[in-house]
Amino acid sequence: MSALTAFDAALLNAGAGNLNLLKVSSILPPTTDYHEDLYIPPGSLVPIAYGTYTSANKGETISAAVAVGLPEGNTFGVIMECSGTCTKEEITEHIKGMVKEAFEKREILLKEIKVAAVQHNVTCNYGSAFAGAILWY
Amino acid sequence: MSALTAFDAALLNAGAGNLNLLKVSSILPPTTDYHEDLYIPPGSLVPIAYGTYTSANKGETISAAVAVGLPEGNTFGVIMECSGTCTKEEITEHIKGMVKEAFEKREILLKEIKVAAVQHNVTCNYGSAFAGAILWY
Amino acid sequence: MSALTAFDAALLNAGAGNLNLLKVSSILPPTTDYHEDLYIPPGSLVPIAYGTYTSANKGETISAAVAVGLPEGNTFGVIMECSGTCTKEEITEHIKGMVKEAFEKREILLKEIKVAAVQHNVTCNYGSAFAGAILWY
Repeated sequence: MSALTAFDAALLNAGAGNLNLLKVSSILPPTTDYHEDLYIPPGSLVPIAYGTYTSANKGETISAAVAVGLPEGNTFGVIMECSGTCTKEEITEHIKGMVKEAFEKREILLKEIKVAAVQHNVTCNYGSAFAGAILWY
Repeated sequence: MSALTAFDAALLNAGAGNLNLLKVSSILPPTTDYHEDLYIPPGSLVPIAYGTYTSANKGETISAAVAVGLPEGNTFGVIMECSGTCTKEEITEHIKGMVKEAFEKREILLKEIKVAAVQHNVTCNYGSAFAGAILWY
Repeated sequence: MSALTAFDAALLNAGAGNLNLLKVSSILPPTTDYHEDLYIPPGSLVPIAYGTYTSANKGETISAAVAVGLPEGNTFGVIMECSGTCTKEEITEHIKGMVKEAFEKREILLKEIKVAAVQHNVTCNYGSAFAGAILWY
């Protein structure tokens, strides 16, 4: 396994392994709908905000998270991504703070934060954690 | 503040903080118009060429620049991006050289170089410099 | 020459230097046609899967490769990219293994692997190797 095939395996676990991902920065367009299990045909070109961490250190705990901050009213929201050598609980707390900071800076009221976080313990020569939010325009 | 929220703050200062940015390499399509203050709705997906530098070293001077080389005639131009631990003056000189080199390699005549450069002195735990050229197709 | 202008020179050699490249992850959409010399107008925005390596070590041998795994039947395929300080032969072997691993993980039958690999010996202050597969939707 290489760094890229570990990342590929993490993508497959997340349900995004058969898409062509375009990494974007992190704004939630106004009036976006939320779908947890949207079917997107393989090979589609999809914008995605994601956090990922790939490690070659056996035994290491790695995490990745993505958080969507939903606003009050009809304005846009903010998506943050994060990853590192920490636990799922730690990264969840950290990313919530990032979303709050981004809302404060924009002076937008925050209604709700949705977090997707994952933790992985590297058991072979490469491991990868991945969390993403696909934007389907 | 984290590396990503510092980058987010730099994006907001540049007027690109509420867009979904797709980082692209660096060709200016033929017959492109230039707008300094184009309004683009929040959450839009926009291709952008940019340079950015994020530092965790308090007191450090960081810079980012983007330069658009406009060609003679109706052909395409070249966009270069650059960033590092230097001053705005230094990065401006450096990026002009990069544009000239790219034009020479393509044997296209250079009419004008537009440079946007920014310098930041890191005052808290993270700082980020950002300069970009949005391509609105 | 800087790291970016070395990369730019490698892109020009590959025939992708006058396009706006959007780096994507690596799925070959079903029923894709293969064209070795497709003309794409300068400045076009094109998704591309690529491997690249830029080095500032004079005398170093660097390589980059991209491999397209074509499936049996009408399903999607997988594209892998790779780069490093090795020879063209080494990277070609390595990337074939990556494609096989990606197909096994997806339980798709592999019909053929197309590899584009390149080797470069760094002769001046910067050198860059690049191999890519453009996806033209």
